Amino acid sequence: MDRSSRGQVDPFIVMDMVRDAAALEATGRRIIHMEVGQPSTPAPTCAIAALSARLQTEALGYTVALGLPELRAGIAALYQRWYGVSLDPSRVIVTAGSSGAFLLAFTALFEAGDRVALGEPGYPSYRQILKALSLQPVGIATQARNRLQPVPADLAGVDMQGLIVASPGNPSGTMLSKQALTDLIEYAHQNRISFVSDEIYHGLHYGDPAHSALEISDDVYVINSFSKYFSMTGWRVGWMVVPQDHVRTVERLAQNMFICPPHASQVAALAALDCIDEMEANRAVYAENRRLMLAGLPLAGFDKIAPPDGAFYIYADVSDFTTDSLAFARDILHKAGVAVTPGLDFDPVRGGQTLRFSYARATADIVEGLARLHDYMAQR
Amino acid sequence: MDRSSRGQVDPFIVMDMVRDAAALEATGRRIIHMEVGQPSTPAPTCAIAALSARLQTEALGYTVALGLPELRAGIAALYQRWYGVSLDPSRVIVTAGSSGAFLLAFTALFEAGDRVALGEPGYPSYRQILKALSLQPVGIATQARNRLQPVPADLAGVDMQGLIVASPGNPSGTMLSKQALTDLIEYAHQNRISFVSDEIYHGLHYGDPAHSALEISDDVYVINSFSKYFSMTGWRVGWMVVPQDHVRTVERLAQNMFICPPHASQVAALAALDCIDEMEANRAVYAENRRLMLAGLPLAGFDKIAPPDGAFYIYADVSDFTTDSLAFARDILHKAGVAVTPGLDFDPVRGGQTLRFSYARATADIVEGLARLHDYMAQR
Repeated sequence: MDRSSRGQVDPFIVMDMVRDAAALEATGRRIIHMEVGQPSTPAPTCAIAALSARLQTEALGYTVALGLPELRAGIAALYQRWYGVSLDPSRVIVTAGSSGAFLLAFTALFEAGDRVALGEPGYPSYRQILKALSLQPVGIATQARNRLQPVPADLAGVDMQGLIVASPGNPSGTMLSKQALTDLIEYAHQNRISFVSDEIYHGLHYGDPAHSALEISDDVYVINSFSKYFSMTGWRVGWMVVPQDHVRTVERLAQNMFICPPHASQVAALAALDCIDEMEANRAVYAENRRLMLAGLPLAGFDKIAPPDGAFYIYADVSDFTTDSLAFARDILHKAGVAVTPGLDFDPVRGGQTLRFSYARATADIVEGLARLHDYMAQR
Repeated sequence: MDRSSRGQVDPFIVMDMVRDAAALEATGRRIIHMEVGQPSTPAPTCAIAALSARLQTEALGYTVALGLPELRAGIAALYQRWYGVSLDPSRVIVTAGSSGAFLLAFTALFEAGDRVALGEPGYPSYRQILKALSLQPVGIATQARNRLQPVPADLAGVDMQGLIVASPGNPSGTMLSKQALTDLIEYAHQNRISFVSDEIYHGLHYGDPAHSALEISDDVYVINSFSKYFSMTGWRVGWMVVPQDHVRTVERLAQNMFICPPHASQVAALAALDCIDEMEANRAVYAENRRLMLAGLPLAGFDKIAPPDGAFYIYADVSDFTTDSLAFARDILHKAGVAVTPGLDFDPVRGGQTLRFSYARATADIVEGLARLHDYMAQR
């Protein structure tokens, strides 16, 4: 049998690093993981407790396709809590992670062949999911002066039917101001471009909180997840908010493409919404890790970094040291025992000169990693 | 924002019945559910126990995209146990239910615009998932004399790049013999048609077990799930076996489209593989339910039924009574308090004259439902 051309998506370059790191660990060496995009913490204790109790009493069969009604209501309430936005729960679609949300959003919004723009650097799977769905990703080169976020001037004259933005961004951690987000949404609406706002890192801010596109317009798709702030990556539960007149379309797609999000994960997610103390304790760890990184990375020599407003990443311009970020990352791994992510996954054009450092792990690891990076750069 | 045309998939007609049944139940009436496609049993006790223990000790973050290695090995071993087939675990892809497997299979195999054939009556989501992925479903009208399964003569001259078969079928419950399956695979290979075998109801047989396409060829996609035999619908964990030279393609797609199947569900599924006694006890209940149905349905007047080799469905030709199966099903629901599925979801052409009866629920419900159906038909 033949494989399709649309199925031939690019490999993750970071997987080379993950594999090399695992090989080194298999030899007994201790590796500091700054390449990972997930918390080291488990799901909140109260979420686990809620699920453990339900496991004993309920069959946990299919839920309705759009998710448990009480979870949809709980997510809608989060918009009041976080943004002061009153949101009708019927517009909330519970999904199999943000991944499931992207599959639903892209099929609901776009025809085969449509062009969908995304800022670069950006989350690599946007590009690959679009390709798998026979859509054309259009990379928009963002500028450091714009906090590595797209601005309307970058979009002018570019043919596109959709635009994806992410604030805080991955890998940059930079946020869009409310005005910058408004400008992008207005540009999209004026040009009949469907607007998709990836808000998966909301909740993880270290100054002002991020703004949701829903504060600005109801005519957008907003995607979020329990993976990051709620520390539930492996549970595969996220959500999407869509315009009221898109709900039935998305419901039918969800019924057929997913049947429902994992029931046990929905039960845990519902409880997680109220585990505020534990999540805020996690955020305090990230805040301390970030403080250490912002002090330590420049001392080590990594001083060209994007403003790390949120998430748990720092994106560094390493053009002073290399034009081959993969080779550079490999050298750091083998000599310093620190795994980092070469920028090529996030920016196929300029990523040869960037690295992403994650500070999602324990603070002790951050301290150790920074010391190793310092020594490595000193001996370089 | 505009919705795409490919996102405008058909609604499930059975949802009308589900809604009406819920409305009647809200008034206090007891409804017998013969419309559902899921076991009423929970996940096996030993699966729940295994997960409960792990919840206390592990973070359950992302797994690798293709699933836990021990689960892939356990699934491979199942092919030895069930079919005597030696299967390399590296060809096993753990997925987010069979739904996730279809999304991966169709993107890995087909270009936008490709034509994919499926026997009718058949599982309605094949058609809708294909449409959402910009593929063209091609319905093949199957014949009662062929057990409502396609045969090569039905396919001759039909332009198609892919073919999906299901044995046991939904809604028919009929199986393909090894020869019939071989004939279809040979036809596909001779005509460069990608062959997808949906084996989700394997394990649920009441005479000879079903044959896997992997007994016949390695050059096929085989899709299965923990939802039916293993009674884990809401857990969203299934699998797919692909040719060795497709593994890397599917892995990259899975990394981007799903990141990983739900981790907790994978833990439970791994334990479920060994809960054989409990699953066989469930099967014994289905066998008794089926015996009751095969005796009771004809007595009630539903005597034109497909040979129900497996799964937990009986598909009846009701053309003696109606040409509007939806109205007929509504009448049965309101007068007899039995919810059944009109055939239109499974066969848009001939489904106006068919009903699907599920016997997945408790035996007491089957007894009660049959009595009600008998009275309803007697008073008709």
